Amino acid sequence: MTEFELIDAILATLGDRAAGPLTRVGPGDDAAVITVPRGMDVVSSIDTLVADVHFPADAAPWLIGYRAIMVSASDLAAMGAEHGWLIVGLTLPIPDVDWARALTEGMRAALMRANLRLVGGNIARGPLALAVSVHGCVPAGRALLRSGARPGDRVWVTGTLGGAAAALARGGLATYRSPEELDELARRYFLPEAQIGAGAVLREQASAAIDISDGLLQDLGHLCRASGVGAELDLDAIPITPGATLTHALSGGDDYELCFTAASPPRLGVPVSCIGRIVATPGIRADGNDLGSAGFQHFR
Amino acid sequence: MTEFELIDAILATLGDRAAGPLTRVGPGDDAAVITVPRGMDVVSSIDTLVADVHFPADAAPWLIGYRAIMVSASDLAAMGAEHGWLIVGLTLPIPDVDWARALTEGMRAALMRANLRLVGGNIARGPLALAVSVHGCVPAGRALLRSGARPGDRVWVTGTLGGAAAALARGGLATYRSPEELDELARRYFLPEAQIGAGAVLREQASAAIDISDGLLQDLGHLCRASGVGAELDLDAIPITPGATLTHALSGGDDYELCFTAASPPRLGVPVSCIGRIVATPGIRADGNDLGSAGFQHFR
Repeated sequence: MTEFELIDAILATLGDRAAGPLTRVGPGDDAAVITVPRGMDVVSSIDTLVADVHFPADAAPWLIGYRAIMVSASDLAAMGAEHGWLIVGLTLPIPDVDWARALTEGMRAALMRANLRLVGGNIARGPLALAVSVHGCVPAGRALLRSGARPGDRVWVTGTLGGAAAALARGGLATYRSPEELDELARRYFLPEAQIGAGAVLREQASAAIDISDGLLQDLGHLCRASGVGAELDLDAIPITPGATLTHALSGGDDYELCFTAASPPRLGVPVSCIGRIVATPGIRADGNDLGSAGFQHFR
Repeated sequence: MTEFELIDAILATLGDRAAGPLTRVGPGDDAAVITVPRGMDVVSSIDTLVADVHFPADAAPWLIGYRAIMVSASDLAAMGAEHGWLIVGLTLPIPDVDWARALTEGMRAALMRANLRLVGGNIARGPLALAVSVHGCVPAGRALLRSGARPGDRVWVTGTLGGAAAALARGGLATYRSPEELDELARRYFLPEAQIGAGAVLREQASAAIDISDGLLQDLGHLCRASGVGAELDLDAIPITPGATLTHALSGGDDYELCFTAASPPRLGVPVSCIGRIVATPGIRADGNDLGSAGFQHFR
């Protein structure tokens, strides 16, 4: 088994997801070539998912693949970007073609769901990890940034929070072998939904946005610092996933919902909750108490 | 030490290399935003460099950083792309700020040398590795591909080959603590030059191109298969780096010179050698002998 045989198996599994309307050159050359629609800027980000740091190494490869795509694509949603394409750097200790095929099937399901294309990549020997480089388009100068929140704006989140953290705390994530076996909490961990459609609509409605990857307090803290503001939260208004706690919702990461600010109630195709308001004083508080910024930190 | 303190140290070291003329939004948001010049396609690739697979884990971080940028940027050269920007996913077992600063200084030197910008990235805990996602621009429809070689074209390489493989075979690469200490062979390993300027000129002169990362025979083999042709090499004409052998030059990787095909002698600003010609019969031969395609394979 060489990396070229692995690549062939992966490309066969990807099928039509390995190219798309903007793809001038797909997998197979030194790089992919993408035609960016006129008047669009390119949005670029990367996430690295390391086995036993960011997912259980012995989790089902389908679930690892689905989650890796959605986790990475969530940065596109946070920027209001669309028409996304991805490049994946996969490192594997051994060239297991069945494992790689199942991983790719999970990736393909997520690519279909989020209307993304995987146009290139690289396979190398190493500890199990995926580096997913994601790209998309926004109308020039219209990217949704972290830095636009203003005092008086309301703070909103999509969906519910805490479910992924509750699933992690409960444990046993490697026991699920397929998406059909997942219960609701495990779905929140393995099958997050990058809110790309909502993000695109929010370009016109939100003053600032971020995706909740490391926990609401930490990520809202990034948004507030970038905007030079603070926030007052209404803890009773935070939408908690059934089975999770308020602590999971405040400090657990991995939900990949959007947190955004807007002066007026947004009109989106997904559920949203108003959880507080932006104030001039830095920091995040509830009923006058500083909530700190507890969340996932990579080296703690 | 949190990843945010590490990121601050890295951004301070990068200085003006963290943004550039095409960078609308640099590091600090959910993603970078790039303005692509009108009429240009975007070229996208990724390379993952894993400690003790792609570089000695205990090599000097400056040298690791310089090499990581050049190795990854070499794919831009092979496509004829310019105006490059990079996004780096760094995984580290411990948050060593001095190590990260030295790594970034090496990256910065390579970014300056190749006129590239590092506009975003991600740091996570994990085995030491760098995933470098590189992007650049080519005039629409003008990317230099592997697939355009035709019988009668000549085969050319830039520079000399085999030096990096000879340095690896000699060993002791982790003993060098700075670029000043490197001898000529060690320079070939740690300080490759992505041939971005030559690649851009070759868009108008070459019928096909690839960069030599895994060895001349293997990479020329990729080019020939993509073009549906074969090649007859003149072994006496292969430019061998002093201190290396013909085997290093044929099968050793890591040189990051360009191999390209062209009907007429190219006019480039770097030394080139004509090493053979393209023929209709698949395979790579010299004096009628099949040379095979020995080169670096990631799982052997």
